[in-house]
Amino acid sequence: MHQLTNSCFVLQEEFYGKPVITATRETVELESDDILRDADKVDVAFLVVGDPLGATTHTDLILRAHAKGIQTETIHNASIMTALGSTGLQLYNFGQSISIPFYTDSWKPGSWYDRLEENLKFGMHTLVLLDIKVREQSEENFIKGKLIYEPPRFMNPATAIEQILYTENERHPPLKPAKAADAPASPASSQASTPEPLDYPTYLPPAKTLAMTLSRIGTATQRIVSGTLAELSEMSEEDFGGPLHSIVIVGKRIHPLELEFAGRFCVNGEQGNWWKVAKEVYGVERETFDY
Amino acid sequence: MHQLTNSCFVLQEEFYGKPVITATRETVELESDDILRDADKVDVAFLVVGDPLGATTHTDLILRAHAKGIQTETIHNASIMTALGSTGLQLYNFGQSISIPFYTDSWKPGSWYDRLEENLKFGMHTLVLLDIKVREQSEENFIKGKLIYEPPRFMNPATAIEQILYTENERHPPLKPAKAADAPASPASSQASTPEPLDYPTYLPPAKTLAMTLSRIGTATQRIVSGTLAELSEMSEEDFGGPLHSIVIVGKRIHPLELEFAGRFCVNGEQGNWWKVAKEVYGVERETFDY
Repeated sequence: MHQLTNSCFVLQEEFYGKPVITATRETVELESDDILRDADKVDVAFLVVGDPLGATTHTDLILRAHAKGIQTETIHNASIMTALGSTGLQLYNFGQSISIPFYTDSWKPGSWYDRLEENLKFGMHTLVLLDIKVREQSEENFIKGKLIYEPPRFMNPATAIEQILYTENERHPPLKPAKAADAPASPASSQASTPEPLDYPTYLPPAKTLAMTLSRIGTATQRIVSGTLAELSEMSEEDFGGPLHSIVIVGKRIHPLELEFAGRFCVNGEQGNWWKVAKEVYGVERETFDY
Repeated sequence: MHQLTNSCFVLQEEFYGKPVITATRETVELESDDILRDADKVDVAFLVVGDPLGATTHTDLILRAHAKGIQTETIHNASIMTALGSTGLQLYNFGQSISIPFYTDSWKPGSWYDRLEENLKFGMHTLVLLDIKVREQSEENFIKGKLIYEPPRFMNPATAIEQILYTENERHPPLKPAKAADAPASPASSQASTPEPLDYPTYLPPAKTLAMTLSRIGTATQRIVSGTLAELSEMSEEDFGGPLHSIVIVGKRIHPLELEFAGRFCVNGEQGNWWKVAKEVYGVERETFDY
């Protein structure tokens, strides 16, 4: 939602025969008076991608309109929040949504990780929205005061998953893997074929999760890929299709039918690992559905 | 969503010049083969209220179609999950959604309450969907095998709030109120004018919360009412407007701007108690916004 409504794609210059003026993020956030000018006399429509009230910016616009005595009417719309259903996961099992920003060498904010952990603790699914950089200036142009913008950047699931695993590693440095690596290879450990015990009655570390990537959802070229987060981290950017992207981290409170539907999007249709993790980590067995 | 998609309102018998056949819940859940018949040869559209993939029933229909080699295309739509933005609360702060069924004398299932508590523990908002009874038979007609259906029943927020407070009372019998009532009235206790200490660094009992009722959201007659759950419990059914209804329980992780917008729906515009509870229970002070 955030990623949809805050981007500024305006493909048409006319809409139902009326002229369309592109409103950039700056226009909406800093120059909303321009949008509201004369709106007490004539109808002004503010068009967005997704649902108009998913982003704070737009509630702000309504408050400003009402302060000027301008009446408003909101027409709701589909958004990533509902299109999520395409994954086969149940909307009511989703917890709070998170947004992952592009990390830089010196800036790696991880507050979104706390929200993810909270969701996972209670077995909720998590929608992860990926950063979008639109109308960003280069540092050089910014310093020179030149209003030249870099090409738009849309975070790819590959980057997002890398950042998720990076932040998990920062927060929870690998205890068990380190132990296993330090330990001398013994016959006992190398032939350990029994499934890993269910260490996670409630909490599930993100690296252990099943996940899904969603690209161009609701369009003719939509692409959904499901797998373990580890499997998905092996994929290349191109494997996910075009932007906009988002990711879903699957929570433990999941019904076999949700897994059945979601598993159909596994890379190459290979569901072996999907159901292995479902059983060993999520504690959910595959059921036979009568179709 | 659940309440929208599972109801069977079909107001038109024609849609873009094509005939419309009403699909009842039984049709969709038990006779889906009828819907899919010939869908490999001609286009069949399955129309719903809300987003088509909010309810498990419809993912099931897709799986059945694919098992028959029938291609499907999903057109997403607005739903209560996005229309929630009308409250002024941020969509990404919502936790899992819950559904409250009509209680009877002998049947008062409270599993939804666990989900509500989980959300509240981490400060998330909660969408509460209210039960709908459509095409229900009376016990007498059911026993006699008569397919006579009772008039539809839509749970009113008044009933839902009563059930929330009932279940909270069952789960957490009043400790502190009992103590206060048992204690002899002392000058010290009666003149206690200091705000109640913040007992709830993370957890917030539902009875202490701010809440909002949503009725006919997205329509011309929509009605939103905000207040403490206790205040809302004093209102009559008529005060909430017509169905469909849902409720939002406000979590602690809330921004002053969310409270500002949401507070505009307080009964009679009386925001005194709203901001009192915001400060004393939620720990959020009112800010001055420059409009």
